[in-house]
Amino acid sequence: MRVLGVDPGLTRCGVGVVDGAPGRPPVLVEAGVIRTPADADLPLRLLAIETELEQWVARHRPEVIAVERVFSQHNTMTVIGTAQAAGVTMLVAARHKLPVHQHTPSEVKAAITGSGRADKAQIGLMVTRVLKLAEAPKPADAADAVALAICHLWRGAGQARVAAALDQARRLQGRRGA
Amino acid sequence: MRVLGVDPGLTRCGVGVVDGAPGRPPVLVEAGVIRTPADADLPLRLLAIETELEQWVARHRPEVIAVERVFSQHNTMTVIGTAQAAGVTMLVAARHKLPVHQHTPSEVKAAITGSGRADKAQIGLMVTRVLKLAEAPKPADAADAVALAICHLWRGAGQARVAAALDQARRLQGRRGA
Repeated sequence: MRVLGVDPGLTRCGVGVVDGAPGRPPVLVEAGVIRTPADADLPLRLLAIETELEQWVARHRPEVIAVERVFSQHNTMTVIGTAQAAGVTMLVAARHKLPVHQHTPSEVKAAITGSGRADKAQIGLMVTRVLKLAEAPKPADAADAVALAICHLWRGAGQARVAAALDQARRLQGRRGA
Repeated sequence: MRVLGVDPGLTRCGVGVVDGAPGRPPVLVEAGVIRTPADADLPLRLLAIETELEQWVARHRPEVIAVERVFSQHNTMTVIGTAQAAGVTMLVAARHKLPVHQHTPSEVKAAITGSGRADKAQIGLMVTRVLKLAEAPKPADAADAVALAICHLWRGAGQARVAAALDQARRLQGRRGA
């Protein structure tokens, strides 16, 4: 399972590709960041993000895209731009018929570090350990995107285990009922 | 000057095309609404909006796109989706090298009705009068998109007059200085 993680943003949009297989540690394929100039027009910035994301998809052929869920409660100056960068990511995914999953920042932090309140340094450290890297992907947005991809692999695996257990329980119950 | 106005939204995205020429009343070309089902996945909804906007652009070849500016202060459940629909609109515009202008709801209301606090019924009424229609474009989102396009024509015309006056003043000053 190859996951493309995207930490949406206009100035720095983190991107990370991670491969995962059951029972094996995840492997980093590529991590980086899409930058657009803060003084460029918003439509051109969104177009630049779309163009580069298309290149990431073409280069790595991910099977799923994991993107950070944006909340309107984050009532900052940047929330609209972040939501639009996330929207462009979902648009690219839909165009390639790739499933998209959104994870909240605290879900990512909890999955990677065990705490939903971890800071950027802790996320970078855990990403480095999990992927057995010499150092954390830089900048922090790239590490966050990689963390999103790992979170998706692990939550997906967890959900698959729960689904399998429920399925088994149902089958056992069916047998008892028969 | 042909303007495509977009009132962004996921469930109902208003679209209106208006032609304007100096000294003549604006003329409605087409108004309508792009609908996406509320129970569909967000990426598919954004893709549907993009696909239909592309069709509007191909059908009418506008010279400029006017889209409602989305604010994070509108701290509702829908602000993220609205921002993403506006982002898709800007993306389509940038792809076709069309200039995009954002207008706030109160700028549109003030331009059309003379009051920044006009309600939907007043906007519908004024759009009907300005364009000499038998009745207001329906639903209200279509009328809002048409109002955005008219607002752009009128604000643009006003800005052009101011720019021309400033230009003339500068030339006069240059002559005096020479």
